[in-house]
Amino acid sequence: MRKREKGRGGRPWRKRERRRDDDLALIYGWHAVQAALKNPARRIRRLLVTPNGARRLEELGIKPSLTPEIVRPEEIDRLLPPDAVHQGVLAEADPLPAPTLEDLAPEGIVLVLDQITDPHNFGAIVRSAAAFAVSAVVTTARHSPEATGVLAKSASGGLEHVPLVLVQNLARAMGELKARGFLLIGLDELGETNFADAPLKAPLALAMGAEGKGLRALTRETCDLLARLDLPGQIKSLNVSNAAAVALHIATTRIAAER
Amino acid sequence: MRKREKGRGGRPWRKRERRRDDDLALIYGWHAVQAALKNPARRIRRLLVTPNGARRLEELGIKPSLTPEIVRPEEIDRLLPPDAVHQGVLAEADPLPAPTLEDLAPEGIVLVLDQITDPHNFGAIVRSAAAFAVSAVVTTARHSPEATGVLAKSASGGLEHVPLVLVQNLARAMGELKARGFLLIGLDELGETNFADAPLKAPLALAMGAEGKGLRALTRETCDLLARLDLPGQIKSLNVSNAAAVALHIATTRIAAER
Repeated sequence: MRKREKGRGGRPWRKRERRRDDDLALIYGWHAVQAALKNPARRIRRLLVTPNGARRLEELGIKPSLTPEIVRPEEIDRLLPPDAVHQGVLAEADPLPAPTLEDLAPEGIVLVLDQITDPHNFGAIVRSAAAFAVSAVVTTARHSPEATGVLAKSASGGLEHVPLVLVQNLARAMGELKARGFLLIGLDELGETNFADAPLKAPLALAMGAEGKGLRALTRETCDLLARLDLPGQIKSLNVSNAAAVALHIATTRIAAER
Repeated sequence: MRKREKGRGGRPWRKRERRRDDDLALIYGWHAVQAALKNPARRIRRLLVTPNGARRLEELGIKPSLTPEIVRPEEIDRLLPPDAVHQGVLAEADPLPAPTLEDLAPEGIVLVLDQITDPHNFGAIVRSAAAFAVSAVVTTARHSPEATGVLAKSASGGLEHVPLVLVQNLARAMGELKARGFLLIGLDELGETNFADAPLKAPLALAMGAEGKGLRALTRETCDLLARLDLPGQIKSLNVSNAAAVALHIATTRIAAER
């Protein structure tokens, strides 16, 4: 994509923008790489392992479709941010094909993430989404972290199971979900209903905002209902990934019981 | 503590060890600092704020007992790790007085953390502990992160509400809890019972292990029961702070219902 190195007005693209266009997803750590290797939809371009990593591949009985390159740990370090814990294994892969909203069947639970920018939190949410069989995570293409690096590591393989649906406008996307039968519930500290007592039913779209900021006004207005998590202690909010896990536990338990 | 700058054999202490002895807790970010300022047990030595931070203190109607020093943001940056999001406010404080096991009343829920070393996860767990009115977090003095910096920020004020009980030997501490009437349940992916169906009652000690490694063998053996979180999706484990939040939600709901 060399021809895109300059923007329309001859202005050079900022480095980050160029990366978003060209770059491969960097997937590291055993959980994340194993899940990527098992995913037929994931096209791996390069697989780097340390000698220890190569032994572990063999012990685990993993036979990758491409030959791993055996490298020293420093060579993997060099490709990653300073404190990345890669455990001796790194895959460079194409990003997964991103489905559109129309591809989503009106069933189960989808998560709607409103400007959650922290990749640790976003990754942990994707991991919980995969653990609770969420059918998709809907978020904006802007104001979301890239689905690589820290996010992929924190997701611990979750990205291979839960598609990310990237949209331009979150409120419009929520409107489309509503038109297709989804109940839209926003998690909000000041919500009128305790989430555990809310009238939950599938298909359900559960919207969560960023730490501190919460849901934006337009996101809130688009919801059918705003619900809070009642907490008995002195602190009245959870880390956003913790809140997502608790809400998904409540929603999956309640919806399964009512079937 | 200058006289402790050399170890017994005349060997200089490693920097990190010295810090653990002498250093003040560094508390930054609005949630964490506000909670510290409100806590009568927390002795603040210095409070640094940027001009914006000073305005926000005033807007929030916070009147600290000591005069804040107004500094440029870079002066706070200099005292913290490179990517610390301090939001223009930093308190240097004495660590909180650490209670012992004997100080714990045999009631409610305590969390037992087995070598959870990641300060983000540990901090998020302390925040959830405060949100679910957990009465203490018991952990080993070694193999745990220090209760400052990233941990204090992630705990978002939770450290001011939930005491950390530091012990030498976790299994022995669990034995003492058991002798005092606590039911000991270990969360373990391979546990024999689904946690949601376990016979939960207060006083309850809930043990959690680190990502990947889980509970150590001796910790597992010391539990009355090992329980798993049943997850309907393709990934069968949660981030440890997410698992703690879900388990605390289940335990507090069940115990409150049975009262």
